[in-house]
Amino acid sequence: MKKTSYKRFMPLHILFLGLCCFVIACNDKKESVSNEQESVPLRDKPNFVVIFADDLGYGDLSSYGHPTIRTPYLDQMAHEGQKWTNFYVGASVCTPSRAALMTGRLPVRSGMTSNVNRVLFPDSKNGLPQTEVTIAEQMKKAGYATAAIGKWHLGHKEEFLPTSHGFDSYYGIPYSNDMDNIIPFRSAGGYFEFWNSEERKDINTFNVPLMRNTEIIERPADQHTITKRYTEEAVKFISEKKDEPFFLYLAHNLPHVPLFASKDFEGKSPRGLYGDVVEEIDYSVGQVLQSLKDNGIAENTIVVFTSDNGPWLIMDEEGGSAGLLRNGKGSTWEGGMREPCIFWSPGRIEPGLVTDMGTTMDLFTTFSNMVGVPIPEDRVMDGVDLGPVLFEGASSPRKDMFYYRGDRLFAARVGDYKAHFITQEPYGPKVVEHDPPLLYNLSEDPSEKYDVSAANLEIIQKINDAVKAHNAKLVKGPDQLLERGPENIVKE
Amino acid sequence: MKKTSYKRFMPLHILFLGLCCFVIACNDKKESVSNEQESVPLRDKPNFVVIFADDLGYGDLSSYGHPTIRTPYLDQMAHEGQKWTNFYVGASVCTPSRAALMTGRLPVRSGMTSNVNRVLFPDSKNGLPQTEVTIAEQMKKAGYATAAIGKWHLGHKEEFLPTSHGFDSYYGIPYSNDMDNIIPFRSAGGYFEFWNSEERKDINTFNVPLMRNTEIIERPADQHTITKRYTEEAVKFISEKKDEPFFLYLAHNLPHVPLFASKDFEGKSPRGLYGDVVEEIDYSVGQVLQSLKDNGIAENTIVVFTSDNGPWLIMDEEGGSAGLLRNGKGSTWEGGMREPCIFWSPGRIEPGLVTDMGTTMDLFTTFSNMVGVPIPEDRVMDGVDLGPVLFEGASSPRKDMFYYRGDRLFAARVGDYKAHFITQEPYGPKVVEHDPPLLYNLSEDPSEKYDVSAANLEIIQKINDAVKAHNAKLVKGPDQLLERGPENIVKE
Repeated sequence: MKKTSYKRFMPLHILFLGLCCFVIACNDKKESVSNEQESVPLRDKPNFVVIFADDLGYGDLSSYGHPTIRTPYLDQMAHEGQKWTNFYVGASVCTPSRAALMTGRLPVRSGMTSNVNRVLFPDSKNGLPQTEVTIAEQMKKAGYATAAIGKWHLGHKEEFLPTSHGFDSYYGIPYSNDMDNIIPFRSAGGYFEFWNSEERKDINTFNVPLMRNTEIIERPADQHTITKRYTEEAVKFISEKKDEPFFLYLAHNLPHVPLFASKDFEGKSPRGLYGDVVEEIDYSVGQVLQSLKDNGIAENTIVVFTSDNGPWLIMDEEGGSAGLLRNGKGSTWEGGMREPCIFWSPGRIEPGLVTDMGTTMDLFTTFSNMVGVPIPEDRVMDGVDLGPVLFEGASSPRKDMFYYRGDRLFAARVGDYKAHFITQEPYGPKVVEHDPPLLYNLSEDPSEKYDVSAANLEIIQKINDAVKAHNAKLVKGPDQLLERGPENIVKE
Repeated sequence: MKKTSYKRFMPLHILFLGLCCFVIACNDKKESVSNEQESVPLRDKPNFVVIFADDLGYGDLSSYGHPTIRTPYLDQMAHEGQKWTNFYVGASVCTPSRAALMTGRLPVRSGMTSNVNRVLFPDSKNGLPQTEVTIAEQMKKAGYATAAIGKWHLGHKEEFLPTSHGFDSYYGIPYSNDMDNIIPFRSAGGYFEFWNSEERKDINTFNVPLMRNTEIIERPADQHTITKRYTEEAVKFISEKKDEPFFLYLAHNLPHVPLFASKDFEGKSPRGLYGDVVEEIDYSVGQVLQSLKDNGIAENTIVVFTSDNGPWLIMDEEGGSAGLLRNGKGSTWEGGMREPCIFWSPGRIEPGLVTDMGTTMDLFTTFSNMVGVPIPEDRVMDGVDLGPVLFEGASSPRKDMFYYRGDRLFAARVGDYKAHFITQEPYGPKVVEHDPPLLYNLSEDPSEKYDVSAANLEIIQKINDAVKAHNAKLVKGPDQLLERGPENIVKE
């Protein structure tokens, strides 16, 4: 309200002068970023680019501590933007994590998580329900052009595909890059085996379809060139839409196993094939940022880079690393759900390190508020507005985080402290309940090594109160991942 | 030889023109670094500043992946300089590691390592032998002013102190900050106990002397202000010596336990007291760099930041983190001997990430070569010249690394591969010999998780050959750490 009255009584010529000074000041600070920005006034409705990696771990970028994976473009992006170190995804595996990003809600609410099937499979019947409101639909309400490029994994039938969920166009694979000719998990000696190393090198082992909108255009998708092709699609979209506001969701299907790199990257990284793949994604990020600069819209675009969940540790050298965080994909330890996250927007976003909390669910709320589209009020939303952190140097409004596995709450974080009520190995059957919960101070002990529950009963009480309040508003959606059958498999 | 003849036949005015262009080009690239550099031609004999932390782990800087320790000055230094990710120290504990840095030799050669006492104690009889040539003595031969500030730990009697080893002056503590009123290690339940948490907060628990040159000037040293005072001494030295070449060794005695921070930092870091201490050291680095800029000598100075060994893990939250590396201080796993390392010299050192190998021993050789002082030829040296990496973008001449514990070779690295012949927990008595050795590909598997010895017998053979060649030249120095007695304790 104060802002409105300020605007109303401020003489227009002073406002204009102020705006000029602001633009000049921004240009002055950021002159290396773009040569064209002098002519680019900041728009009310900036573009949004969300770049999502698959199974990339917290420790897999140079700037997040990996010694042999070289990510100069992401490191530069982090240097020019905000590097977040307490940024979470909504689940530790693919489908529910992506549902959380799309809906701004914990997947337990949309039913996009299950205690039986952890993700959607090529024979799954359902997908993201039409009753959910996606971040793309929010952007459409504000007149944005929208595109989804890459992996979807929220339903492969027409009614679940991106084009049914607010995206003008779609180019990518509908589920994980290891799916389709899927060999049922074979349990051997307590761990899982998938394909042997020779099978993993052959794209024909994986009969994954590549789609444009609702049509299959290539099968099996040539995964060697897929990161390159996603990038080209993204750059083309940016060039075509440079004069209108747009929302681009670029969801790489790598470095999820099986790993494939293009000729320019294969065999180049000291880290081996996993490093090749991450370095190619890094290069892709560089190309996207360059395209924004070349089109003179870098200052009018917010770019976010993160990943869907932690590293697939059972894949050994073919999986990534969570750095100093504990465990990985499939787990509610930090390594499963905390991700590298970089926000970049030269002139808008104040560069720096952010140790406050944020989540992928907050993008829905933050972007909706930025473009003036109301947040749905007929359902519980889990996002908060990160705008104050991004643009004003304020502390994050997010003070808690709920860690689900399927529809069960395994852990909860309030402030610095995280309580584990239940733990389970990512692929282990053994569920361990903890009463009192295991308690870790994540700021002092990010590796979750030192249980401090005994000395902090009042903190446990505080977390229990937060869980009680959370549960009071919880309505679980019906399990959308449950039903499967051969009739659901996509044919050409 | 080529360079000499080039100089001889090149007309002087063309040389001068070329030099001007070079300086202008450097200025152009680095204009944010210093406003005064236009007037500063690059000297043949640059200054050297070696900043050494104590027990800082590989994962303890923001730019090396720590989520809650904030190190903006070191991160900026890494951005402007070279961030090395395969940089080693000569031993996994304090005294031998420092001996390696000073002498450019593995401590087994100088006798500054022992199977009985792992470091020097306040009642130790000996120290670094006078027969050793130190990096400071090398610099003196080239006419440098030299100063040691901070922790020494190479002998506390006059004949072993910095002023007897090539340093014009000394200000600091002669051994570790937990030493003097030392409580003998008490073994309890399989782990070690030192002082209780109340005792650790009191500087009087540790009767550590602060010395200027050979005199004790304060006892116990006020450790709350010690980092601040070391920094002030360093800044004063830089200002005083700005017009002559200098070598400054600034060896902080923190974040070695016990942890103490000054009022400006205590209670400020989300990481707790350990974070406060590291953030104060980071601030100190910022002050040193600023002082070089303020004095107009940033471009004529090479600054190196690293640490003496990995994190003291048995100290729990009071110890640091090795990030994704395995184990810590006292161990020949990577976490014990690989350290963050940043080289900085605006205009001289090409910014970037260096994944090649380097060690603290290489500083002796690199700096000696830069100033034209011959490397001793009457003994085996372990350093290589890192100049080509620092200044020419070449790959590192260092291709191997030998990991000793006491006088026994525990592991050896050749190229990407490291073989462990012997392993032992940092403070555990149990020595485990491996035949064939455990083998890890450190580039692909920096966390040393996947033993690949079975499939790589020819690589083991190659490492065995390197060890054989190494052993053929090995002359072990007599154990300088062995003799102890109350008569050796320093009195006021």
